[in-house]
This record gives sequence, structure tokens and C-alpha cells, in this order.
Amino acid sequence: MTDNKPREECGVFGIFSKKTEDLATLVYYGLYALQHRGQESAGIVVNDDGIFHSYKEVGLVSEVFSARRLEELGLGNMAIGHVRYGTTGVDKRLNAQPIVVNHIKGRMALAHNGNLTNSFELRQELEMNGSIFHTTSDTEVISYIITKERLSAPSIEQAINQAMNRIQGAYSLCIMSPSKMIAVRDENGFRPLCYGVTDDGSYVVASESCALDAIGATFVRDLEPGEIIVFDKDGIRSIRDHCKKIARTFCVFEYIYFARPDSVIDGCSVHEARRRAGKFLAREHPVEADVVIGVPDSGLDAAIGYSQESGIPYGIGFIKNKYIGRTFISPGQKSRESLVKIKLNPIAETVRGKRVVLIDDSIVRGTTSARIVKLIRDAGAAEIHFRVSAPPFINPCYYGTDIDSRENLIAVNHSIEEIAQIIGADTLGYLSLENVVKLGGENNDGYCIGCFSGNYPTETPSGERKSRFEQKISEREGKK
Amino acid sequence: MTDNKPREECGVFGIFSKKTEDLATLVYYGLYALQHRGQESAGIVVNDDGIFHSYKEVGLVSEVFSARRLEELGLGNMAIGHVRYGTTGVDKRLNAQPIVVNHIKGRMALAHNGNLTNSFELRQELEMNGSIFHTTSDTEVISYIITKERLSAPSIEQAINQAMNRIQGAYSLCIMSPSKMIAVRDENGFRPLCYGVTDDGSYVVASESCALDAIGATFVRDLEPGEIIVFDKDGIRSIRDHCKKIARTFCVFEYIYFARPDSVIDGCSVHEARRRAGKFLAREHPVEADVVIGVPDSGLDAAIGYSQESGIPYGIGFIKNKYIGRTFISPGQKSRESLVKIKLNPIAETVRGKRVVLIDDSIVRGTTSARIVKLIRDAGAAEIHFRVSAPPFINPCYYGTDIDSRENLIAVNHSIEEIAQIIGADTLGYLSLENVVKLGGENNDGYCIGCFSGNYPTETPSGERKSRFEQKISEREGKK
Amino acid sequence: MTDNKPREECGVFGIFSKKTEDLATLVYYGLYALQHRGQESAGIVVNDDGIFHSYKEVGLVSEVFSARRLEELGLGNMAIGHVRYGTTGVDKRLNAQPIVVNHIKGRMALAHNGNLTNSFELRQELEMNGSIFHTTSDTEVISYIITKERLSAPSIEQAINQAMNRIQGAYSLCIMSPSKMIAVRDENGFRPLCYGVTDDGSYVVASESCALDAIGATFVRDLEPGEIIVFDKDGIRSIRDHCKKIARTFCVFEYIYFARPDSVIDGCSVHEARRRAGKFLAREHPVEADVVIGVPDSGLDAAIGYSQESGIPYGIGFIKNKYIGRTFISPGQKSRESLVKIKLNPIAETVRGKRVVLIDDSIVRGTTSARIVKLIRDAGAAEIHFRVSAPPFINPCYYGTDIDSRENLIAVNHSIEEIAQIIGADTLGYLSLENVVKLGGENNDGYCIGCFSGNYPTETPSGERKSRFEQKISEREGKK
Amino acid sequence: MTDNKPREECGVFGIFSKKTEDLATLVYYGLYALQHRGQESAGIVVNDDGIFHSYKEVGLVSEVFSARRLEELGLGNMAIGHVRYGTTGVDKRLNAQPIVVNHIKGRMALAHNGNLTNSFELRQELEMNGSIFHTTSDTEVISYIITKERLSAPSIEQAINQAMNRIQGAYSLCIMSPSKMIAVRDENGFRPLCYGVTDDGSYVVASESCALDAIGATFVRDLEPGEIIVFDKDGIRSIRDHCKKIARTFCVFEYIYFARPDSVIDGCSVHEARRRAGKFLAREHPVEADVVIGVPDSGLDAAIGYSQESGIPYGIGFIKNKYIGRTFISPGQKSRESLVKIKLNPIAETVRGKRVVLIDDSIVRGTTSARIVKLIRDAGAAEIHFRVSAPPFINPCYYGTDIDSRENLIAVNHSIEEIAQIIGADTLGYLSLENVVKLGGENNDGYCIGCFSGNYPTETPSGERKSRFEQKISEREGKK
Repeated sequence: MTDNKPREECGVFGIFSKKTEDLATLVYYGLYALQHRGQESAGIVVNDDGIFHSYKEVGLVSEVFSARRLEELGLGNMAIGHVRYGTTGVDKRLNAQPIVVNHIKGRMALAHNGNLTNSFELRQELEMNGSIFHTTSDTEVISYIITKERLSAPSIEQAINQAMNRIQGAYSLCIMSPSKMIAVRDENGFRPLCYGVTDDGSYVVASESCALDAIGATFVRDLEPGEIIVFDKDGIRSIRDHCKKIARTFCVFEYIYFARPDSVIDGCSVHEARRRAGKFLAREHPVEADVVIGVPDSGLDAAIGYSQESGIPYGIGFIKNKYIGRTFISPGQKSRESLVKIKLNPIAETVRGKRVVLIDDSIVRGTTSARIVKLIRDAGAAEIHFRVSAPPFINPCYYGTDIDSRENLIAVNHSIEEIAQIIGADTLGYLSLENVVKLGGENNDGYCIGCFSGNYPTETPSGERKSRFEQKISEREGKK
Repeated sequence: MTDNKPREECGVFGIFSKKTEDLATLVYYGLYALQHRGQESAGIVVNDDGIFHSYKEVGLVSEVFSARRLEELGLGNMAIGHVRYGTTGVDKRLNAQPIVVNHIKGRMALAHNGNLTNSFELRQELEMNGSIFHTTSDTEVISYIITKERLSAPSIEQAINQAMNRIQGAYSLCIMSPSKMIAVRDENGFRPLCYGVTDDGSYVVASESCALDAIGATFVRDLEPGEIIVFDKDGIRSIRDHCKKIARTFCVFEYIYFARPDSVIDGCSVHEARRRAGKFLAREHPVEADVVIGVPDSGLDAAIGYSQESGIPYGIGFIKNKYIGRTFISPGQKSRESLVKIKLNPIAETVRGKRVVLIDDSIVRGTTSARIVKLIRDAGAAEIHFRVSAPPFINPCYYGTDIDSRENLIAVNHSIEEIAQIIGADTLGYLSLENVVKLGGENNDGYCIGCFSGNYPTETPSGERKSRFEQKISEREGKK
Repeated sequence: MTDNKPREECGVFGIFSKKTEDLATLVYYGLYALQHRGQESAGIVVNDDGIFHSYKEVGLVSEVFSARRLEELGLGNMAIGHVRYGTTGVDKRLNAQPIVVNHIKGRMALAHNGNLTNSFELRQELEMNGSIFHTTSDTEVISYIITKERLSAPSIEQAINQAMNRIQGAYSLCIMSPSKMIAVRDENGFRPLCYGVTDDGSYVVASESCALDAIGATFVRDLEPGEIIVFDKDGIRSIRDHCKKIARTFCVFEYIYFARPDSVIDGCSVHEARRRAGKFLAREHPVEADVVIGVPDSGLDAAIGYSQESGIPYGIGFIKNKYIGRTFISPGQKSRESLVKIKLNPIAETVRGKRVVLIDDSIVRGTTSARIVKLIRDAGAAEIHFRVSAPPFINPCYYGTDIDSRENLIAVNHSIEEIAQIIGADTLGYLSLENVVKLGGENNDGYCIGCFSGNYPTETPSGERKSRFEQKISEREGKK
Repeated sequence: MTDNKPREECGVFGIFSKKTEDLATLVYYGLYALQHRGQESAGIVVNDDGIFHSYKEVGLVSEVFSARRLEELGLGNMAIGHVRYGTTGVDKRLNAQPIVVNHIKGRMALAHNGNLTNSFELRQELEMNGSIFHTTSDTEVISYIITKERLSAPSIEQAINQAMNRIQGAYSLCIMSPSKMIAVRDENGFRPLCYGVTDDGSYVVASESCALDAIGATFVRDLEPGEIIVFDKDGIRSIRDHCKKIARTFCVFEYIYFARPDSVIDGCSVHEARRRAGKFLAREHPVEADVVIGVPDSGLDAAIGYSQESGIPYGIGFIKNKYIGRTFISPGQKSRESLVKIKLNPIAETVRGKRVVLIDDSIVRGTTSARIVKLIRDAGAAEIHFRVSAPPFINPCYYGTDIDSRENLIAVNHSIEEIAQIIGADTLGYLSLENVVKLGGENNDGYCIGCFSGNYPTETPSGERKSRFEQKISEREGKK
């Protein structure tokens, strides 16, 4: 159950081919593999020798792109795509990506994953010089900054390199000019970004390696924090002026929840990181029990780890209805109690009369966790020991994760014991701050754990401003 | 039959209310009445006390707006809308209007009917200063120019007033700021624009008076060429700095074909203007005949005029299938000949054995006219005397009318006699240049007849440039 | 304005080709031409050498059939189609036609226009022998009766011939067996039915000749009342056992309103019949006036006739918005008054200060007529003389026309003078019963005018039963 | 991967309430829980005091039913629903269920899961007496037989009881008359059927208990083979005239693959039955290995069983893309090889360098199994030991399972060793016939294993006839 779970904002994908071919369909498959990173809107831009054809719309990849839509995008030698998760209602459609802009040196398409921390300031400065904005997204700010640098820079990659001195925060970018595809990862390396190569020599950029797998491309390597890679007819070039200036602070929640278990990020398998979380949990919060079960889908890997470390058998605790999608008509509040088993139904056989260790990756408001505990209890579990494969959430994120508002976070206002009681578990244990930074294994350190610890690796937007840029915009509106 | 007919580019509509109410639905009705001015895309922006909610999409008003879509736009105290006809395939969706932009002083929405003659130069200048463009439309250029002026101007209307010194060509604008609705008509008065008032005191701006009728508003007056009218909480204010500097040059094709017969523009009923065209034709090209028929829908009014002046009885010559819309699957080329009567079927009873005067408003390529003549001939007409309620098309339009390319215009390459023979008419007569400028009646002079005469009322884009801005853009694309 | 107007129930179309080809598209064009006869649902069945492919759905032809749908129907050597207007909400989809049934001798598809008067009795008899019904339509009853006869009859056409002894009322049928297409018109000839031939020798059956025109077929002749025509690989055969047993009683409302003006039925042009109605009106109800205008679209032909007979000039009084279709969102009751001009807008120029003769084909409840009169009055008409090209409606129809319920018919409860006052006309005149039977011209007599006179040409359903079969069915439902 | 997997034909659901309420939405949730039993079409019929409102269409439950569709079905006191999987293209829509028929005693709606073995004979007999058929489905045959019996039987339930003497084969039915809901399970008990009760006393009938869970109903019991249960205003009545006349022969493939793991059928948890299959496999085909993985989703339960019995650790071997639905655009044949990982991506971490036991529930053509083995091999597995939780398929099913045609079944033409080689596994083991009949646990015997053994529990359709009724129908077509 993913209700109120923190949500990742985006996934990016790009391909640079040596010939003119149907790239839209390949990007479509890549976006399918990244759909978990953003379910609000999807878009593809195909570059046919400098002419850009694009389509983006609110909806899942499957809803936005039909065979006819893909065909209309035509053939090309480059293409980039984007899936987005966002918040505000009215702007959903407007803020879909990639965005395409025309400037003095031609066209540019951008796909962005992350969140700037100084976009408000940058935007204000641009507006004071007469710039107009069509969207409320950081991506349009980035495109302006690059365009401004492009007036003096000798090339698009040099303009990007200069722009990186100005933009702060989290950004993994896939940019397309008439003749080049360019991948960029911010100096902190908050968000993942990697590239690979296909059998026929096309280059592929993706937020996660699972998207390379999806189209049969071979993973080459992750971008280093601060790195710019240029793909053009002359091959690959890396610009590393912004590398190694500061330590990597990768978002640990990518390992815990966001990324797909079959992806490998910065050298560590996501499945492995989660299994490791389960093992740490087993050591930190051991218990005598008969079976370990995970809450599908994101608690399953950690449950395997807990089982392996503790020796308690692993079991299948739930069946998740795989047909429930966006068009599912949710039961109204009043009938919700009796209809809770539509999405998730326990397998009574697994838990009846047993002492159960139940693993999930987070507790947000507590409501969902309480329902899940009750499902297992009603199915006959003798004891329920809830284990969470992350520390408690108690702080906002400024780098592109959408966390429930602070007053809703159960861990802000309650002790572990109180939470256990509220959700109805016999015992409750969270992963420690100490171990959460070890999830990537040895030689893989440097994490942002701001949402757990409150310590952020960069300056954060100053206090009087709300964390969400859109809110600032709408405040301004009424007044002028 | 409208195949290859010149096409108007847009219709604009706006409403300023004294209370917060469902304006989206009123704009919807207004756009329905203006649908003939643009069938490619439609859009509405609702202003709820400074917050803008917009929706625009490719399609007819009926396709773009469902009851749910209108409801989602919410209540507001101002709203503007637009219908558009355009040309290029890929950019249809992107170039839909109204456009909404954010600038340093807030938001602005623009709906535009017309075509600038210096947009290429303005755009290039803006790009050289680092501006980025999301669309290829003149409207974005106008919004930039206004925004730049707004940096120094004390108000939005003053910014517009200053911007009018910079933009050249045809523009009827309906603009919305957080607190004002502003109507603007260019100095030449190429395109119509009027305003009215509803029973409960709301102000309404529309391209044609038929849209005021549609929502039960009372017509007040047309905007003068060069006039800016500001509607806000303090009432109405007119800015006339650009009025009367030059003579009006209203597009005569608005009377001949574009506008709806039930509209009154600059003091003259469109129906009356067309009836007058028919009367002129009867005097210029008299003939002995038994019946006068018009080609539906735009030839009917002139046919009445011809009948009245000549005394030859008026008849109903054709039935037009009223169910044929955009989703109609056109017969392929090979079967077109036998299937021509799907859209337009002659009433044999009216023409059998008769000498027929057949009135249409234009002959473009000649193919359609030839088909219509053949329909009447096959239905048994003894003689067919074709009369055209406009002079021959032989030149491009730079002010927002999309005319078939010159090599396709039959009148460019053929004499009247040749055309008569090609389309199979016994005789053929066009309205003279002398009389076309009298269509509006007495006291109603000042027309642009550039497409007929080749004399244009403004500077035109210089020779080496193509007339359509989009083409310039796409040329640039490939090179950078 | 067609609100509450009587509504025709159906149109049928069929084609028998000598080769296997894309007939679905031809039927599609035929149905487009017959769309005015039924806007609720549409369907096509293609017969590919005995295998039937069908699609039918609620909606206009344009909504039901996309290019893909037509393609999915495949090629065939025969095909039939149907457009339907019906009444009950829930059964709309179920009762769409053509219906396809499987019986002991193969398959059969039926398209039906009309209404049986003994379907209730036939159905009851069938059910008592264990028959089950999927729909509430007469067509399924007909298919059962034919099937029962087929058990003993040597051929499908002979089964139909025998079935005609059993079914009573109005029916124009287009039936398709695996190897034959069969057209059938009831003995009274209530509804039109004709056939034609294409250039390449295919036979075409249609409710009206305008559908033959639409696909370029040449009209051959109308079916005689009571005639069966069989089209198969051996050519055409006529079975006339039921011909000339009784006099023709053709529905005169087909001439007045239902049929398209460009159709010719039983030797008379519909346009001509309507023009004749106008002429009769001019003689029966003369008046001094300045202009004659018709209510679009069905009042225009009669207006021409009135003008020609009276010598009063014909004018264009209204513009009808041609973009208003099924998806148009009607203004709610409260705002209806101010928004009445969306669909129909008067041309003030035509009527201002004039004495106007206003022609429509019927007055049902009077509400719509009152609105139209007010439109013209508000536009400045000095006098309004309303003329109706049919006698007053005061009785139900049992032969397939859906007339508003009796308590709503204004003519049932009010005198001519009262009606004139209610609708706001200065004078009012209806066509007389004496002249309505002369609409078809000389040598063209034999009409059903039951809805005007109350005298019906057949037995009618007995008194205690409601006229609409569906109502009987639903009554039964609740009780068992 | 489910390509070419045997497919269950249907799921049924019904609810009988004591009050008039929104039952359509409850049926919708029930059908969501049964979606795995049929993905081709879905339908719901609501009974509002004898008036039936129905909607059915091709598509998933989520595609067929929007909130508006459900609302249009209205309130009722009874409702039934159906999900269907079928085969023929053109008839998909026609054969959607439930079907509603009108007969002499009122209306009846039927939802059917299973396949008759004598439907061809029954249909022929009916047609010889003049019956017509609208569909090619067994369900229409059943409705006719019940209707015929109803002519003499005193009640609908008695008519059903008599009809059971005539129809042979597999049928689990949910039938609705104007005042009763009736559940029926055939004498062999081929398909599951159970009922439950909600908190407010409504009765619920469902193919599987997971659908009772979905709406919060409490499971009461399975229907006995041959049992009829009547739900009406007087409560529940069981008719057992057809019970215990022959031994139960439940389809064992319901346990192996069709049913949901969280359902309990005839006293046995499906999850448990599959886990038992894994345990049997571990004993029958032991191997030295490092990890046991299952092919999602249906191989997971058996993998747990194999792991538990063998002591080899359980691992997560694959990630299945959960966004891939019916609108997914499958890669063309040529690019299929490189794109195989879109749907299923291995977790290399789990298998790299390991000896892997890979569990799936069946091997049909072998192609999919070969691809899966290759995925694991390419991910670095040292050895792959394929275990199948069912015996080899080698025979057709006559009771409602759609098995690939015999020439495609790999086990028909190849030995176990050959299959292992074809799919690329190091070893291969199938579950034995001896153990497959023990899957339900003790006291739970009586299975149909005809598809494995070739021994069928009933007479089968005679030799010269094809197994699929539709094929017979289409054969007949061309000839008449």
C-alpha cells in the first residue's frame, strides 16, 4: 500500500543513435521501466536532424502513448523522454516534461529529475530582466540559465558547465540540442543517472539501470556527481569540472523505496541494499517468531533479508490485486473499512496462529500500517512484530521527494511505543540512523539522510519561504 | 464546399463580471458562436481573483470542452477564450491559445486574432538577448514585447500602449491580467473586435457580434482601429493614442466569407454586405435565367441579392449533409468522383431544364467549382451561369488569412474565359474591384483588398522571406 | 429547432455486390445520408461469403464508426446497415440494429424501419412456446416469425412471403441471408424504400434516394407496397403476392418533415412536396407582408413555395449554428432565456420593420415556436404571420413515428386563435386536411394522415394497451 | 509470463440484498477480485424490483466500468456480474455476459463459468423447433433449456433443477429472476462456487472466496457439486436432487494456476495447495542448489514450498513490471529478443554464480520457458534446475479451459530430456500424476486431470466434432 508514501518526482531517459530510426518506441519502453519514478505525466521528444517532434500529456506511459502517437513522433537520430510525479492539480499538464524551448542558437529539449534549492531566486532575477515563464517548474528556470550562458559560451555543453555554477540542489538532466545529447548529474549526486550502450552502438541515458535492461542495452557506468557527458557524432566526451569538489550525498531513500530492486545504482544492487536493511533490522530488533512476511511490493526484499539473518522462515503474507490502476474507483470513506481487502488480501494460511514479523519500508501517517496490522490480526496471527526498513521520517526534503506535510507524520508527534500501540503491533522497530548509511555496502558511502536526521548537505531555501515553489508562485498571483 | 478556401486564423472572446461565477460556460457558448473563425484548436482561461485556470487542446470547441472540463476550470470573475485555425501539423497543440505567461508583475493571458508583419525581426532581437520561446506563434512575441514594456510602464494598459509602437500588422487582442481585461484592435483595424454588456452588467469582448448574441449580451460598439479598452472594477476606459493616425483598412474578406451573416461589423450587417455583393453582381454580370441558387452556406446571401436585383426567382439548389464533421472519413481519391454527393446533393427539381445562375463566394483551385457545376449539369440544368461574389484571388495575405499557395490559384494563370471553360460554366463573372470596396455600404470605407489588388496597406515582410513565420523557424532548425 | 418534434424511427441501407470488396465504407456513406432518419444508434453487418461481421453502438454514424472499425468489418460481397431513433434509455444499446440471428438454416441479419401493430400478440404467442427474447424491439419478433416459417418454407424469400401474412403494420425491411439480400415493403407502403444500381452493377437498397445519390448509385425505382425483391447471384426477382391487395397509405409526414428534400419518394420530390405545401398555405392563409422566411432547416422549402405563390419576397431569417451537435452542453433551464440565440440567431437586417411571414413545419408544444416568434419580434419585425406546413397534430401514430404525448400537444387543448396568442404570432394558419393529401402531386394519392385526422388505415392496438410496446414489457416486469 | 498459458473462461459474482442500494459498485469490486479468471469482457446486471439494467463490454473491469457507468446502472436489490475470457475475435462483444433474456414468465439474467459438452446437440434440437440464437455461447443454450422447462415447472428453481437433467459438462451458474438469485454448481463440481454473507445480511455468490473478502463478506461455504441454492426474500433454500449422484471431479488446474492464492476452495487454501506442490516437487526431483526462485506470479507459492521442504534458501529472482497492461505495445518479433526484459527483469544479485532451482507452474510451447532460463543464465546463474508444479499437458480440456492446440504442446512431441535441452535447463522435473491429485490435502479428493492423463470424468464431444463450439458454427455458416 502506497498511500501517502513519499514520492519521487521524476525519471529521465534518452537515446543517441548512429542512424535515423524509430527511437520513440525505444524511449517508450525505457519510460515503462521508469514508470515507478513518476505516474503523473509522460513525454517524449524525437529529434529528426534538428527538427523536434514532441508529445506529452497527463497520464501513465500506457495512457499517453498509443501506437499511433508513437508513429506520429516519426523517426529520429536522438530522443529523450520523461515521467513525472507532481503535486498541484491545475499545473499538471503544463508542467509535463520534457520541455522544448527555442533560443537564438536553435532548439533545446530538457528532461529533469530533482529539485533546485535556489530556483525562486533565479526566477525572480530573470523576471526582473523581462523574462516570461510558461510553467512553474524548475526545468524552465534551468533552460533559461543555460540559454543565457549560451549567448557567450562556445557550445551547449560549455553553457551547461557554466550554468552549473548558478543552479543549486538536485538535478539529473538529459538534454538534447539539434545535434547532441547531454547527460548531467549534480555535484552532490542526489539522484541516480547512468548510461549504457546497445548492440548496434547507440548510447542510452537513464535514471536507473533497469531501463537499460528494458531495451537490451548494456550498462556502462553511473555518471559521477558533477559530471557532464556529451554524446554526439564524434562519440562520448566527459566534462568533469564540477566533479569531486564536494562529497557525494546520494538520497538513501532511492535504495530504501524509490528505485526498482533490479536496478544497480552507484555500484550497489537495490535489492541487495534492501536485503541488507532487513539483515540490519534482524540484528537491531530481533524477536522470536514463526514467519517473516513483507508488505508488497517494497517490503519483500527486506523481509528476505530479515528471514535470512534471523533464520525465521519467509512466507507470502498478502496477495496484491494486480489489476488495480488509476481508473479504479476507490470505495468512499464510509465503506472503506469493509472494503480494505480489495487491494491487499492476506493469505490466512501463512499467518494463522503464528508469531509474525511484518516488514514495511516506512510508516507515514500510521493509518495504512494500522490497517495492514489489522488484516493480519484478523487472519489469525498470534503476535505481530512490525519492522520498518528505514528510520522514522521527521523532516522535509528539498531535493525532489514529496513527503507528507509534517503535521501528518506520525513519528513527529509520537514515541516508538505510542506508534506501536496506534498501529496495533505487539512490537515495533525502525532501522537506525547508524545503519541506514551502510545500506550501499562497503566503499559506498556519502548519503543524504536529511528527511531522517534534519541535517542537509546544502543550503536550504530560507525559512520564511515555503518549500514548494508552486506555493510561492500562487501567493504572488493574487496580489498583482 | 470549403475545400482550399481561404481560412481565417482566429476568434477571440472575453468576459469581465462583477461577481465570481461560472464564466467558463459563457465563454464556451461564445466560442461556439465563433467556431467558424477557427476549427483547429480551442482554449479557455478563467481568472479567479488572480489565479488562472486554463485548458486548451486541438479540436473543435465541442471536442475540447466537456461538462467536466468546464467544471474543472472553476468559477472566476474574468475569463477569455480563443478558437484557432493554423497550418503546421506538429505545432498545432503547442500553438493553441490563449497563452498564459508569468512575468515579474504577475500573470497575463493573451488571445490573438491576426498576423504580425514584423514578428520575425522582433523574435530575433529577443532571442539575441537570451529569451527563449516555447511556441512559434506571434502571440508569444507580443507577450514578450508587452512584458519588456511592463518593466518600465506604470500599468499593463500603458505597457500595451507602448508595445503598439513596436508591433506591426494585424492584431485584435483580448488580454487578461490578474485584475483587468483589455481589448486591443490594431491601427489598421484589419480584424473585427467589438464589445457588449449583459443584463447583469458584465462586459463582453468578441471578434463578432454574433457571439454577443449567443450569450444574450447587448452589442455596445466596435473598437475603433488603434483603440485599447480596459475593463476593470472601476468600469471602462478607452485609450486612443493610436486611433485615427492612419485610415482604416478592414479586411473585406471578412464581409465576403469569414464572418457570420448574422454579425454586424463596423456598422454593416454581414448578410447585408453579401446581399449587396449579389446585387452588384446582377448589375455587372446580368444574364437571362430561370433560377438563382447559391452554394451553401456562404453563397446563399449573395444569391438572394442577385435574385432581388435581377428579378430571377431564388431557389434551393443543394442539400448539404449537416452531419459531416471532422471525424467523417473522406472517400479516397479514386472513389471521390462517384461519392461527391455525400456532402452536397443537388435538388434536381430546382434546376432540371432550367437556366441557372449559380453563386459562390470564391474560386480557388477550380476543382471544387468544377465539381459543383457538374452536379448541377448532371441534375439537368440547361445553362449554368457562375457568379463569384468577390474579385479573383491572385496575391498572398500577410494579415492572418491563409490563402492557398500562388501556384494553385486558378486566377493567377488563367483568363476569365479559360476559368469558365475549366469549371464547365456557360458564363462566369467576378465582382469588380470597384464594387468590392462598396460592400459595407455608404459611410463605411477603408478596406484591405491586397489579396485581390496586390496593394497592401502596410509594409510587407521583405522579399527574401517566406510569408509564413513557421517556415522560417523550421528552416533555421536544421542548421544549428 | 427540432425540440419535441415527431421523430422517425429508422433508416435502412443495403448493398449486394458481384465481387468481394470494402462494402462497409459504402454502407457508412449511405448511413450518413440517412442520418436524419435516426440519430440514436447505428450499425453495419458485412457478409463475407456467409460469415457475418457486425458492429453497432449507440451514437451517430460518425461516432460509432471510425476508420479502424470499418476496417475491422472486413471485405464482403453484401452488407446492410441501419440508423435508429428510439425512446427508452436503458435499452438503447440493446435495440440497436441490424440484428443478427442464427437459426437452423444459417444466419440472418435484419434492418427494419417501421412499427408493427400486432407485435405484442405475436411475441406473447412465441413466448408461450418457449421462445426467449434478447431485445424489446419488433425486429426480433419479425426474425422469429420468419424463422418459424423457414422451417417449412423452401427458401428465405418464401419464408418472408409467408411471414407477411402474420405481421401487421409498418415495415420496410432490408434482410440478409448467407447468400441473398432481400428488400421488403409492407402492403400499406407506410415507409419509403427504393433500390438502385451502381456503375459496376452492385444493387443498393435504401430508405431514401438521397442515400443512393451519396454513393453514386442510379435510382431504379421504389418498391411497391407489399413487394419483396430478392437480390442474389442470379440477379433480381420480385415477389408481388402482397401487392395491390389494399390501397397505398404512405405516411404524409415523410414529405412534410422526415425525408430529405433532395430525395424523391414514390415519384415525388420531397422538396417539391414541401414547396407545394407552401403554395397551398399561401392560398389558404394569404396575408399582406414584406418578407417570407422559413425556420431552418425544414421550413425553408415551404417558405420558397409561399413566396412564389404570394409574390412576397423570400428572405434569410436565421443563421443556425452548424457546429452544435450531440456533445453540445445545453444551457440549464434558468439561463435558457438569455442563451436562446446560440443555436438559432435571427438576421435583424432581414426582418427589421418588416411584416414577416414565418413558416415552420409543425407546432408541437408551442414553447419552441413561441421562442422563435420572440426572436423575430425582438429583432424588430413589425408583424409576424405564422404558417404551418401541416395540419395540427392531435393523435398518436402507430406506425413508427414518435409523437409527443397527447397532453403535451398544444393543438389538442387550444383553438387556432389561442395558439396564435400563446406563441405570440399576429396570425396563424395551418395547412388543411384537404390539401395535405395533395402534397405528392397528381397521380400520387393514398396517404396515412392518422396523426392529424384520427382515422387509421389498419386496425390499431386495442384500447387497453399502450401504444409503445416497451411500456407493456416494463409493466409486465415488476409483476413476476 | 503468461503467454500461451491455459486460460480459464470465466468468473461469476452475485449479491442479494434485503434493501434497495448501490449494488453495482459492490459487484464491481467483486469482479475486480475475479479479474484473473477472465480479462476479455465484463458485465453487470442490476435488478431493481424486476426491472433489469445491464451493461457489458469488451475490456477489463476497469475499462468497462467508469463511475458514471456504475451510476447509470442505478440502485437495486439484486445484481450479478461476470468476467469472461473467450477466443474468437468477432464474437467477443456479442458473447459478453451476463446475458439477459425475456421469456413468458418474465426476465432472467445468467452468468456462467464452464463449458457444456452437449451444447451442440442441444442447440441443434432447439433450432429445429424454430429457435433463434443471438450468440454462439453455451449460456444462451442454457437459458433456452431453462425457459423450455419453465413452461411446465412451477418455479424458476424447479425449471433449473429439470434443466440439469439435460445439460452436461461444467457449469457454475449465477442466475437472477425478477425476485430470486440462484446459484448452481454442476454435478461434477468442475468449477468452484461459494457463497457468503455480509454484515448487513446480504447474500453473496462468487466463483472464489477472494471476491467475498474483497467486499468484506464472510465466507459461509462452497456449493456442493450438483447443488442449487435459492436466495430470495424468504432466505436461503438448498435443492440437492443432483448432489452425490456421482463423485466430485474438481479441475486440479484451479489449484495449480487459475485460482488466486488467497482463495480457499472446497476446504483447501490455494496458496497451501501450491506450496504442497512445491514440497512434492522437492521430494520427487531433489537437487543440490543454492537458491530457489519462482517465476512471478504463479510460481512463487510452489517455490516457497520447494525451499521449505529442501532447506535451500528462497530468493527473489525477478521483478515483473507492474504497469504493463492491455494497452502495452508489444515489441515486434524482430526486436523481441533484446526487449524481453521489459516485462520480467532478473535480479542478478540473487542468481549470480548460484545453482538455481527455478519453479514455474507449466511449460506450454517451451518458448517462454526458454526465454526465462536464458534470462537467469545471462544474469550469471551457474546451474538451472527447472521444476514444474504440474504434470505435462498433453490433452485438450472440454470443461472450460482454453489450452493451446495440441501440435503446439511441447510435451506431446518431446521427452523430458529433450524439453530440458530445448529450454536450456540443466535438469527438469514435472510433478507426478500420483501427487497432483493430492494437492488439496487429505480428505479432499476427486479431481479432473484429463488434460494430463487423457481420462475424462464425463462423455466427451464425439470424435468428428471439434472441441470448440464456435468452430462448428462457423463451419456451418458458409454452406447455407
